Amino acid sequence: MITIICTTNRKPSKSRVVAEFYQSLLDQAGAESRIMDLSDLPANFTSTALYENAGKNESFNQLMGKVEDCEKFVFIVPEYNGSFPGVLKTFIDGLKYPASFKDKKCALVGISSGTQGGALALSHLTDIFNYLGMNVLALKVRMPRIEAILIDGKITDDFSLELLDMQIEQLLKF
Amino acid sequence: MITIICTTNRKPSKSRVVAEFYQSLLDQAGAESRIMDLSDLPANFTSTALYENAGKNESFNQLMGKVEDCEKFVFIVPEYNGSFPGVLKTFIDGLKYPASFKDKKCALVGISSGTQGGALALSHLTDIFNYLGMNVLALKVRMPRIEAILIDGKITDDFSLELLDMQIEQLLKF
Amino acid sequence: MITIICTTNRKPSKSRVVAEFYQSLLDQAGAESRIMDLSDLPANFTSTALYENAGKNESFNQLMGKVEDCEKFVFIVPEYNGSFPGVLKTFIDGLKYPASFKDKKCALVGISSGTQGGALALSHLTDIFNYLGMNVLALKVRMPRIEAILIDGKITDDFSLELLDMQIEQLLKF
Amino acid sequence: MITIICTTNRKPSKSRVVAEFYQSLLDQAGAESRIMDLSDLPANFTSTALYENAGKNESFNQLMGKVEDCEKFVFIVPEYNGSFPGVLKTFIDGLKYPASFKDKKCALVGISSGTQGGALALSHLTDIFNYLGMNVLALKVRMPRIEAILIDGKITDDFSLELLDMQIEQLLKF
Repeated sequence: MITIICTTNRKPSKSRVVAEFYQSLLDQAGAESRIMDLSDLPANFTSTALYENAGKNESFNQLMGKVEDCEKFVFIVPEYNGSFPGVLKTFIDGLKYPASFKDKKCALVGISSGTQGGALALSHLTDIFNYLGMNVLALKVRMPRIEAILIDGKITDDFSLELLDMQIEQLLKF
Repeated sequence: MITIICTTNRKPSKSRVVAEFYQSLLDQAGAESRIMDLSDLPANFTSTALYENAGKNESFNQLMGKVEDCEKFVFIVPEYNGSFPGVLKTFIDGLKYPASFKDKKCALVGISSGTQGGALALSHLTDIFNYLGMNVLALKVRMPRIEAILIDGKITDDFSLELLDMQIEQLLKF
Repeated sequence: MITIICTTNRKPSKSRVVAEFYQSLLDQAGAESRIMDLSDLPANFTSTALYENAGKNESFNQLMGKVEDCEKFVFIVPEYNGSFPGVLKTFIDGLKYPASFKDKKCALVGISSGTQGGALALSHLTDIFNYLGMNVLALKVRMPRIEAILIDGKITDDFSLELLDMQIEQLLKF
Repeated sequence: MITIICTTNRKPSKSRVVAEFYQSLLDQAGAESRIMDLSDLPANFTSTALYENAGKNESFNQLMGKVEDCEKFVFIVPEYNGSFPGVLKTFIDGLKYPASFKDKKCALVGISSGTQGGALALSHLTDIFNYLGMNVLALKVRMPRIEAILIDGKITDDFSLELLDMQIEQLLKF
């Protein structure tokens, strides 16, 4: 079971569309998956689920539980202000160590309107996940200028499709 | 006027104590300052102040206004999960570009219980602030093992004090 | 006086061409500059100018001297293997601290054949220069797909030209 | 077979001592290993083994061959100027893609006289190796203040020893 995490709480989001497309690719590869969407984070989680409130917010705990009982993740990461969405890190700050990510594995996908495709976002995330003990697949897929290639729910350029296929193949063996 | 930002919403926090100590050093240097504390972020700001809700949350707007009418910042950054607090980036994700940070200046201070002192946290933040057009002072003060040196509201080791003094001297001329 | 450093020892290099173009822009802005090219590094400098051999290689010392007597730099940085050229860091490893970069200022320009434009290269370099006490201008110019826009010695796309002009304007005031 | 790379060309170096200690730990774990020392790089390799000279320097080619015929690596990384040694990246810049690192695996060890233990150095290296397609083990061992714990060729503090043992255990299964 692979959990695909849509890492923004913006709703609707291109990241969600890419998450669903990624799931269709996993389906084709015969891999079971589910989507977790950070737009499902409770409205007040920064005040009710972090630090001394850890464990007290039932809605947050449900998302946390889905992280804890999964071993492999795909993070769909939109570029916000030169890095990943703040809510993703805030979500991580509310999770338990080591149950959430230690000794687990993940793959990263970056998307952006601009030309970077989340290069720095994915580097920052790699630092954080490695710190938490999660191995990050070397092959990170960056998709800059996402508006030009995400059409009707599908990634349409051959280069990105090839990278996504390679990433999935490697993730399944990782 | 320098705004010192306590970058966690944890309450109480060592970062707040360090922010107040930093303010006392600025006082001694004859520099006017104020403290902004991210524990003042509204409880539900991730749902009411970001993206399509930008500008709609009055409490958030007050914090945003304090950023917009200031030119120099000091960020007191606790290390959370190998980087800076997620709420700081989420706060940034709700601010306006370019009014908030473009062509402005800041200094960074990292604190941690562990041995890193926020080395990666400050690197990630530098990437983000540079992306947003804010110059970051090269001299970043890292204070690992903060519990051992922050006593009765004061930083007590000579090496850190020397670095803080140099940072303030440079920030005032920056 | 601004020193423009061509940060590869490859010869000839696109970085050198960009360095000369950058110099022409500085000329137009009325700023004096000179080019330092790492292709002038002595062939055996890794064995004769580093560590216990510091100061012993006369050719290396000449380049070192040009760094020490300058206060502002522009680094033209080609992307090699996802970061900046190794010879640049090796050159830095042979320089003296603090005479070379401390309390000085620089601007960074990244170029690449691929789509990144040196995003990570410039981030890594910023970490290093900040560590050495040199302030790095927030506005970093990335030029991905350099082959398409560097024609007859000139950068030809309007977006890059605008960024370069802004960078120069800011560097002169930095 | 695991290749332990001493990533500086300084001679003698603490990194070499740590490399030999690491090899003794691998021996105890029943894992075959060999040490590659970048002090064996030819004196003029920056002029005779890179770019258009790729493949022309026989001594360099021997080191390159040892990389190409190995699947797992440990990099012993001293902190130089806030990152890893320039010669390491210069060495990488002379290697072949994809034969050198793609689809291979490595673990990283950082050492420093100061308090960072190579936090940024290992982050930068991770970026580069991931770019080249090599998976980097999440567990990176940082050993700050190396002079205090490296005694008579042995790492002597329990915390570092525990981390090194965990890293080796994970690397063997990686």
